[in-house]
Amino acid sequence: MAEQEKEAALPSKENFSEWYNDILQKGEIMDVRYPVKGLYVWYPFGFNLRRNVYDLIRQLLDENHQETMFPLLIPENEFMKEAEHIKGFEDEVYWVTHGGMSPLDVKLALRPTSETAIYPMYKLWVRSHADLPLRLYQIVNTFRYETKHTRPLIRLREITSFKEAHTVHATWDDAAAQVDEAIRLYTEFYRKLAIPVLASKRPDWDKFPGADYTIATDALMPDGRTLQVGTAHHLGDNFAKTFDIQYEDAEGEQVYAHQTCYGISERSVAALISIHGDDKGLMMPPEVAPVQVAIIPIIFKKAEDVLQACEKVKEELEAAGIRVKLDASDNRPGAKYYKWEMKGVPVRLELGPRDLKKNAAMLVRRDTGEKQQVPLDNIKEEVLSLFSAIQDNLYKTAEQGLEKRIIKCESVPEIKKNLASGIAKVFWCGDKECGLKLEDEVGAGILGIPSSEDKCQGKCVVCDGDADTMVYVARTY
Amino acid sequence: MAEQEKEAALPSKENFSEWYNDILQKGEIMDVRYPVKGLYVWYPFGFNLRRNVYDLIRQLLDENHQETMFPLLIPENEFMKEAEHIKGFEDEVYWVTHGGMSPLDVKLALRPTSETAIYPMYKLWVRSHADLPLRLYQIVNTFRYETKHTRPLIRLREITSFKEAHTVHATWDDAAAQVDEAIRLYTEFYRKLAIPVLASKRPDWDKFPGADYTIATDALMPDGRTLQVGTAHHLGDNFAKTFDIQYEDAEGEQVYAHQTCYGISERSVAALISIHGDDKGLMMPPEVAPVQVAIIPIIFKKAEDVLQACEKVKEELEAAGIRVKLDASDNRPGAKYYKWEMKGVPVRLELGPRDLKKNAAMLVRRDTGEKQQVPLDNIKEEVLSLFSAIQDNLYKTAEQGLEKRIIKCESVPEIKKNLASGIAKVFWCGDKECGLKLEDEVGAGILGIPSSEDKCQGKCVVCDGDADTMVYVARTY
Repeated sequence: MAEQEKEAALPSKENFSEWYNDILQKGEIMDVRYPVKGLYVWYPFGFNLRRNVYDLIRQLLDENHQETMFPLLIPENEFMKEAEHIKGFEDEVYWVTHGGMSPLDVKLALRPTSETAIYPMYKLWVRSHADLPLRLYQIVNTFRYETKHTRPLIRLREITSFKEAHTVHATWDDAAAQVDEAIRLYTEFYRKLAIPVLASKRPDWDKFPGADYTIATDALMPDGRTLQVGTAHHLGDNFAKTFDIQYEDAEGEQVYAHQTCYGISERSVAALISIHGDDKGLMMPPEVAPVQVAIIPIIFKKAEDVLQACEKVKEELEAAGIRVKLDASDNRPGAKYYKWEMKGVPVRLELGPRDLKKNAAMLVRRDTGEKQQVPLDNIKEEVLSLFSAIQDNLYKTAEQGLEKRIIKCESVPEIKKNLASGIAKVFWCGDKECGLKLEDEVGAGILGIPSSEDKCQGKCVVCDGDADTMVYVARTY
Repeated sequence: MAEQEKEAALPSKENFSEWYNDILQKGEIMDVRYPVKGLYVWYPFGFNLRRNVYDLIRQLLDENHQETMFPLLIPENEFMKEAEHIKGFEDEVYWVTHGGMSPLDVKLALRPTSETAIYPMYKLWVRSHADLPLRLYQIVNTFRYETKHTRPLIRLREITSFKEAHTVHATWDDAAAQVDEAIRLYTEFYRKLAIPVLASKRPDWDKFPGADYTIATDALMPDGRTLQVGTAHHLGDNFAKTFDIQYEDAEGEQVYAHQTCYGISERSVAALISIHGDDKGLMMPPEVAPVQVAIIPIIFKKAEDVLQACEKVKEELEAAGIRVKLDASDNRPGAKYYKWEMKGVPVRLELGPRDLKKNAAMLVRRDTGEKQQVPLDNIKEEVLSLFSAIQDNLYKTAEQGLEKRIIKCESVPEIKKNLASGIAKVFWCGDKECGLKLEDEVGAGILGIPSSEDKCQGKCVVCDGDADTMVYVARTY
């Protein structure tokens, strides 16, 4: 599609916002030209990446969740049942008011999230303690009427790929354990995308509307802002009471159930693109790359031999389940390198007459640029071992980038200084007033208390009172 | 979930409508209790079937199509561009008029189908003949404000699983060839679901709004009505002119492109359930069955041995990619048989102490009820060969059922008589007036001219004029 548009170079990643918008188009991830604000189109290449990413999350969840699907449209009366919940969403809900030419009797909300669509059914499905735990998920489109600046994959009016899980448990503690399990699953998921995430318990004023508490995972973006890329909510029995979800316990008593929900969206793809990409384009972790190996025949005279050898390598790699593209187009090798680098293909395989004479091929890593000649007889093993090295290197690089940008700070000016490049870690007494004051003074948000951190003693950066925990502070998307 | 509800027997399939509603609930396909008319909930088991069915269609399309995703919301001005198209849909469109508390500047339609969402982008994507053919598809939810009687999987207000392909070609003939290819793909897809379909060219008054012509595939339901389970539309250059989709041909001229679109919905699942099921419940073609083998341990005293052997069989089958459920619950074998028959599991494997002594297991076919004892050493091959026999038998049975219910008729009374059980095949002169009169008199629809049929000579059943083709007439869903 319109090759000529893609020849211009990317802006440097130092200008992150510009680079991001540009790479979505040049890397053929999203087209931003759809004629409604906040709605975007997945290019086939981008959607292929999305498929691989969501296959991963399905794989992880399928071990003890089941996939399902609930309607998009929620009748106003159900949607309005949970007071906190509706307060949190009412400004953002799209309303369907007409079918054909006629006004509807009951207005229908486009789900901003599906609690109020799912829980009336859970009331019917949950009867006895033997039905618990119930763990379902769906991958659906959800809608938010965002008034802030929208941004592809990050802040959308149609979230096209919302994976939301909804679980039901006998006790509050079971639900709490499920929240921890969700965060573990999400961390593992992001590990496969080579993205290190920080898990932290959101302050009370930033939890999910209707929840007892929220734990979120954040990724650190190149511009020093954090992107919330996963949330898990302990719903207590709040929704169970609203939607009358009760079960009969072992003693025959009717008891309110306890619930959790947790979600991931296409922000996972945004983080992947942003964290790994460079000035040459996308850089894909092999596990999810739509094309894992691009074979470039280096052709002078004896084209047939070389093309045949390339074809043979392609077949051999494909037989091992590797996603391969043989670029036999008329473009010059340099143009091909440019193209497949832009697309983030982890390994380029060059094969010319001289390689063929040695029964070898040249493998080039997208992440480091390193080249090595390897024997064709061993090509599958060599490629797979490179994949694993690349995956490790991407994660390690991202992890180092994250670690060095988390700075312990002891004063407001120090926080402000460090927020330019990353995350501040500070003592906070836990008091809401101090928290809000801190957010206001540094112009950033408290992400929350790190999930896996030992207690420690210090003085609140705001009031100088005793604090027994540190929190992350960051500029957030 | 609520086991007790499922113990009551199904109504006989002779009362098809009752049987259908009941099996959706008892077989845990769809829950019809969602509080909005025409919207239903996929049970996890039903969604698992849906996943397998849609994986099949993805597999078929991925050979030369690419998957993508466009927004749900279409701005009114784009939606209103193609006059015929909007006429066909305006009574059925849901409109979003409010975001949060505020009215929107431009009303947004929930896509009833995506031509008007996709083609403004195709205008940007198609530049030169080298970009053609372009073949994309998406699997999305679409919406129709149905005023007729709604029915799960068949007539919905939210079609949850609309697979729509949209292709662009250089010439009218290329597009026509793509329509034929789509029908070939759909026939192959339904072959894998063991469903024979009839392809026919819809009469002009029944084509897709905005198309040159429509070819559809229909399945014959147990009550003698046909269900349209796939359509392919030749759009000519109608939409290309409306949305200005032009390409530069080899001579450097700007030329309007030619387009097709073709769709399949969860009606594919409705047909599968309806055609194969029986009075005992669902009957799944092995290829898409969520559970392909249910292992039932027959336990008296030496339970451990038997359970271990069952576990071993399960592992061996799973290693071969077979979807297995080992039912080690406390229920009696009879209750287990009932349950897994209801769920349509193609093969039941019984294993008790006597079988174990012979190093054998009993395999029971869901379709014929036949039992055979087979050696455990060969279990994988035995099961796979049964799958293939079952798949063939389901198709053969359905095909015979279809063929014997297509009756050539020579008069209106004869047509009316035969429509009770199936499809009438009659001569029609092709004149619209005759066609509409025929539909009116027999209280049924002309499906259209069979796609793969030789010309033949006869007299129009309405006007007695010359007719060189026969058409299908049927009561339709």
